[in-house]
Amino acid sequence: MIKVSVMYPHQAGARFDHSYYRDQHMRLVAQRMGPACLFYTVDKGLAGGKPGEPPAYLAMCHIYCESVESFQGAFGPHAKEILADIPNYTDLAPVLQISEVVVGQPQQAG
Amino acid sequence: MIKVSVMYPHQAGARFDHSYYRDQHMRLVAQRMGPACLFYTVDKGLAGGKPGEPPAYLAMCHIYCESVESFQGAFGPHAKEILADIPNYTDLAPVLQISEVVVGQPQQAG
Repeated sequence: MIKVSVMYPHQAGARFDHSYYRDQHMRLVAQRMGPACLFYTVDKGLAGGKPGEPPAYLAMCHIYCESVESFQGAFGPHAKEILADIPNYTDLAPVLQISEVVVGQPQQAG
Repeated sequence: MIKVSVMYPHQAGARFDHSYYRDQHMRLVAQRMGPACLFYTVDKGLAGGKPGEPPAYLAMCHIYCESVESFQGAFGPHAKEILADIPNYTDLAPVLQISEVVVGQPQQAG
């Protein structure tokens, strides 16, 4: 399993509508990707590693797929529509990363 | 629920022993933290957002806890021992972030 992490770097004065991101944008992504998106998670940055330090990222989402190919095949055809929704919740440009899930969440946890 | 993400920035020529990280270091963290660590996940960076681009992070772990306080209470007393293990798998200095889990993994997924 792989995850695609979309990470919005913290920046003083940046705009980010966490409710829109969770309730509108991520649902749009999941709907458009269909079953290739096994599930997704959303994080809201609270703090950095040192006292008083802001988080590196204001918000992140992680889209879980069977493979890089299944992500690309499901996201690609809708990329334009999904990316066009970004200004509706932020003026930040996200950092993308694809990772292999080496250890996943246990079934009974969370 | 909160997650503490420990992220190792990609750097050309950096040393990172993914097996040791998964099999030794993360088990040490979980053992020392006890039940305050609800569970943890581990990622291995594969690629960045553009073709040929390296991942922002070579590896990441995410430690899930009920609260920032429960993390601090369980990690703090063992921080010295845990941090002293880092040179056994990498010469990179990690970036830490604490996030609120806004949307978690569904129970039946993964």
